[in-house]
Amino acid sequence: MRLSELPTPALVVDRGALERNLAAMAAVWPGRRLRPHVKAHKTSGLARLQAGLGHLGFTCATIREVEVMAEAGLGEDLLLANEVLDMRRLGALVDSGTRVTVAVDSDAVLRAAVDGGVREVLIDVNVGLPRCGCAPEDAGRLADAARAAGLEVRGVMGYEGHLMLVADPVERARRTAKAMGLLQQAHADVGGDILSGGGTGTWRTNTVVTELQAGSYALMDTAYAGQDDVPFEQALTVLAAVISVNAGQGYAVADAGLKAFGMDHGNPTLRDAAVWYCSDEHTIFAPEEGGPLPALGDRVRFEPAHVDPTCALHERMWVVEGDEVVDCWPVDMRGW
Amino acid sequence: MRLSELPTPALVVDRGALERNLAAMAAVWPGRRLRPHVKAHKTSGLARLQAGLGHLGFTCATIREVEVMAEAGLGEDLLLANEVLDMRRLGALVDSGTRVTVAVDSDAVLRAAVDGGVREVLIDVNVGLPRCGCAPEDAGRLADAARAAGLEVRGVMGYEGHLMLVADPVERARRTAKAMGLLQQAHADVGGDILSGGGTGTWRTNTVVTELQAGSYALMDTAYAGQDDVPFEQALTVLAAVISVNAGQGYAVADAGLKAFGMDHGNPTLRDAAVWYCSDEHTIFAPEEGGPLPALGDRVRFEPAHVDPTCALHERMWVVEGDEVVDCWPVDMRGW
Repeated sequence: MRLSELPTPALVVDRGALERNLAAMAAVWPGRRLRPHVKAHKTSGLARLQAGLGHLGFTCATIREVEVMAEAGLGEDLLLANEVLDMRRLGALVDSGTRVTVAVDSDAVLRAAVDGGVREVLIDVNVGLPRCGCAPEDAGRLADAARAAGLEVRGVMGYEGHLMLVADPVERARRTAKAMGLLQQAHADVGGDILSGGGTGTWRTNTVVTELQAGSYALMDTAYAGQDDVPFEQALTVLAAVISVNAGQGYAVADAGLKAFGMDHGNPTLRDAAVWYCSDEHTIFAPEEGGPLPALGDRVRFEPAHVDPTCALHERMWVVEGDEVVDCWPVDMRGW
Repeated sequence: MRLSELPTPALVVDRGALERNLAAMAAVWPGRRLRPHVKAHKTSGLARLQAGLGHLGFTCATIREVEVMAEAGLGEDLLLANEVLDMRRLGALVDSGTRVTVAVDSDAVLRAAVDGGVREVLIDVNVGLPRCGCAPEDAGRLADAARAAGLEVRGVMGYEGHLMLVADPVERARRTAKAMGLLQQAHADVGGDILSGGGTGTWRTNTVVTELQAGSYALMDTAYAGQDDVPFEQALTVLAAVISVNAGQGYAVADAGLKAFGMDHGNPTLRDAAVWYCSDEHTIFAPEEGGPLPALGDRVRFEPAHVDPTCALHERMWVVEGDEVVDCWPVDMRGW
């Protein structure tokens, strides 16, 4: 099948760009040094490529992601890097042979792990992002409590998410080192083999973690693309068809809108055009000065501003090489 | 089942508020005077309630919405109020007895209707929103061309979407009248019984259309809630659980984020709290001055800023009366 035959809107992955991104990351973070975050793509077909490069441990954000990865045969070492208060579904996976480790940042979540039948945890440490994570100075106590409750404590995790989009790499490195100092301090009290953290934005600046939780690097988005030291290619686009053209006012309308793009980082981008706005099923755009208006039926490829919530809106991801559609992966980890 | 037993995040509909919204709208726009837009909720279970009030025609934005409505037995008179270039799936529905009318704003879309086997159209007129729609002065020509091609032209449609959120009702009424003047001008050239348009924001100010295409009124969102003459109640919330509490910094973390909320109109709202930000699976919030922090495991109900893309992110909608879950509807019109 050709790209021109796909129903629109369609989530499209350029296989060459994807493979180059995976290879570039694996060169710096090989094998289990990378624990790819599946929340970015929610697609076991893509995770399988990552596993093929030797990244056998994965990071998840939801129970559903853990379940689908296990069903897909990718459950060798799954980290739910998020707090959950009812872990019974995870315990059922553990009972069936899936290795599941969960993040724990409070006594209540620790108790949920025990009650739910999960056996391995990381102590989740707040390293500056105002979100989950215990205070670094409380990590040792929590690890002791976990061990006393019969849990295996594999180490610590701490996500410096507030630093991912700091523009200046030097400033980002300085602040990452400071955040990771807090993680090391906690790790000294906790023990275990693992210091887990980091992401696409700190793949070059985080020199502390034993495993990087990067996810966006595989497909990329325009928010990350602005950073000089994040050289991954835009592998993900949303294909849309031009369904209306207003020659008088100089704009065109494509059939992908708010239900095809994650919008929290702003509008999608279209090469050589200005995007005016999106509505539910439309994006209105105008060619840059001097450029021609597209024709009705033309196909355009938008670059989303934020990859994660964009993928979550689509049922499937079409894999292309040039104009040829070579594969189709269900976005099978959506929902909860 | 109780609200407290639902897995989170969960899309929750208050049945009482929903029914009051449906009744308030039906009192002003009874029976076929209202053509509810299903894109707002994408849920045939909810559409069935609307049909039960006598609204037997529906508005759709995608082919999938038309298909699912037909499958649900709600296909008596479906309007696809959007331009489509491949109508073969719609033609198949027509062949099987579903009444499908499509919007047409160009010769190419007109040709697609003929080629796809669709037999009835509305001429889609641009009434000021920079999106689809032919110029008002071109509508008559397009209607003639449609009739010459063997299509039944039922009338015109024109959506004054740019006026929905104009704050001042008097100003909104004035500009709506002007926009609808363009629709009437086109209708004079086109003929047919139908002038279709309007929405929740102009339910009181649009006095021209023969059928109102309102959708948001049923569930509502915080964007519309700011308008004095749009008195519908917030019937939709996203239920989330508090999974982490940072007493030192005075905030809490709930387990609903960018994948549970349409974000194009901004952050969701939580009563008596300030929402700091959302990430993929989290919303971070702090109680307003003097208020207590929630406890771990507490449940909170966020009001989304934009109903349509919020619904599109969820697999199901839980219907509640007070704390009791009385029904569950699949959000069965997602995707394309």
